[in-house]
Amino acid sequence: MSILVVGSVAFDTIATPSGQVTDILGGAATYFALAASYFTSVRVVAVVGDDFGAEHEAVFTKRGVDVRGIERTAGKTFRWGGQYLDNLNEAKTDFTELNVFERFQPRIPKEYADTEFLFLANIDPVLQAAVQREMNGVRLTGGDTMNFWIKGTPKELAETLKLVNVLLINDTETKMLAGENNLPRAAQKVLAMGPQALVVKHGEYGATIFFREGAFGIGKHPFRAPALPIEEVKDPTGAGDSFAGGFMGYVASQGDISREVLKRALFYGGVMGSFAVERFGTARLQNLTREEIDERFQVFRELTHLE
Amino acid sequence: MSILVVGSVAFDTIATPSGQVTDILGGAATYFALAASYFTSVRVVAVVGDDFGAEHEAVFTKRGVDVRGIERTAGKTFRWGGQYLDNLNEAKTDFTELNVFERFQPRIPKEYADTEFLFLANIDPVLQAAVQREMNGVRLTGGDTMNFWIKGTPKELAETLKLVNVLLINDTETKMLAGENNLPRAAQKVLAMGPQALVVKHGEYGATIFFREGAFGIGKHPFRAPALPIEEVKDPTGAGDSFAGGFMGYVASQGDISREVLKRALFYGGVMGSFAVERFGTARLQNLTREEIDERFQVFRELTHLE
Repeated sequence: MSILVVGSVAFDTIATPSGQVTDILGGAATYFALAASYFTSVRVVAVVGDDFGAEHEAVFTKRGVDVRGIERTAGKTFRWGGQYLDNLNEAKTDFTELNVFERFQPRIPKEYADTEFLFLANIDPVLQAAVQREMNGVRLTGGDTMNFWIKGTPKELAETLKLVNVLLINDTETKMLAGENNLPRAAQKVLAMGPQALVVKHGEYGATIFFREGAFGIGKHPFRAPALPIEEVKDPTGAGDSFAGGFMGYVASQGDISREVLKRALFYGGVMGSFAVERFGTARLQNLTREEIDERFQVFRELTHLE
Repeated sequence: MSILVVGSVAFDTIATPSGQVTDILGGAATYFALAASYFTSVRVVAVVGDDFGAEHEAVFTKRGVDVRGIERTAGKTFRWGGQYLDNLNEAKTDFTELNVFERFQPRIPKEYADTEFLFLANIDPVLQAAVQREMNGVRLTGGDTMNFWIKGTPKELAETLKLVNVLLINDTETKMLAGENNLPRAAQKVLAMGPQALVVKHGEYGATIFFREGAFGIGKHPFRAPALPIEEVKDPTGAGDSFAGGFMGYVASQGDISREVLKRALFYGGVMGSFAVERFGTARLQNLTREEIDERFQVFRELTHLE
């Protein structure tokens, strides 16, 4: 089944201990779309400038991603610069040039009206809510957010959270959003804000999914998918968005949305995040096979499997 | 089979967001011994002062721990004071009074000569090496260390690491010991220093065991045991030592030392660490049942188990 992602397409300038790159294709919607494309058909709504060329569009279309929702406007595409020289787990932002993204007003092409799954990547929660209301016939809405919105626009974010079925954020964001330092308690508070499930991404330690009582099945315990320790982390950019793409893409590829599906999706999220960091930018996500993905799924599964 | 732990017995003064306590029984050897006592017979070598009373000894003997190796000398027992008011994951030390521990010279009672498993808790690596050489007939030696020795006495520590079969340390210590920020690469460097296996404790995220090529069986992948997110962390003190006690205690309780045994031990380590933090000091570890332990083992196992 099809999935629509609404978010940023960007050109990134990145420095890591493994090297540096300038103006390479990135952005949350890009990483998400490529990761999800190995599981299901993907549609994108985003905005780019006139520096977005045929070679950039080809990155999407080669993976079969529907780009009719990528709007081109006069000006430059969103640019981000950051480095991970001291700490591979946290980016230090060098610059952010919003450019055409500053006036982003998501427009959903008519052809996208039958989309069944929706992912609201990290953008202004007011825009996230507007998109979700326009697409309110979808079977499942996933969403992301960040400290900027948690601190800056809490009221608007609270409205959006009521419309999101599965929220995917990291440990720090979960604790900040809940105002609570204990993770399981923070998760319960976030679930009380709206989502039926909360996926907390732990970076190199994997991710945990917490369920609201009775949501997607029964059982009171959370579920955790570990990640394999990666020897070659070339560039952590986009790991979280690739995780979300693997997670949502796998869910969209399944007939039903059960806890067992969401648990497997958590593993696939970790798999796609782990591939993403092996090369700079989206290079690794552009050239995977489903066999490689399922092989790593198996390795991740065995990582914690007792006989 | 019996296990001997050599390390500190202390009186701790602790403040956490849940309350504060003064001069309660603690120390690495204490947490280790109590945790291991649910799996196998435990012997302790430590030193205490004349303030160590019958009520403190009873904490060990009630759990069947052999205390003939706890030496009493004139003076006060080792005291530590610390707080976790800002961050439950990291202690801020208020004071350290070594007292009788300053001149600790481990003396192994003759009756301990037939001990089959040895754990060198975090003490001066020179003492660790001396104990291991005296007990060199043991089947397996586990060990711990900390930043103080990694930075302060690297040569002495290097000698000790050649005598340790399984080293149990945390992420930060692993990276510091290896001088390498990538965990899997750091693990390989540490294994090259001597140990056949390295257990890296990730706190609330569980632990990973890395194997030297060919050690304890075949296979190139590490193994990870997750920990359940704990809602009630009253006092994190001793979590790592309780982990080590559960891990080594389970290994000592088994006939053979295979990878499958070490993997299960990793889960039992996480289980005992998670019990330890539920109450101040050793309170929870004093009053457990094997049923409660195996029930949580099952919960931890299901935490990452796909159907």
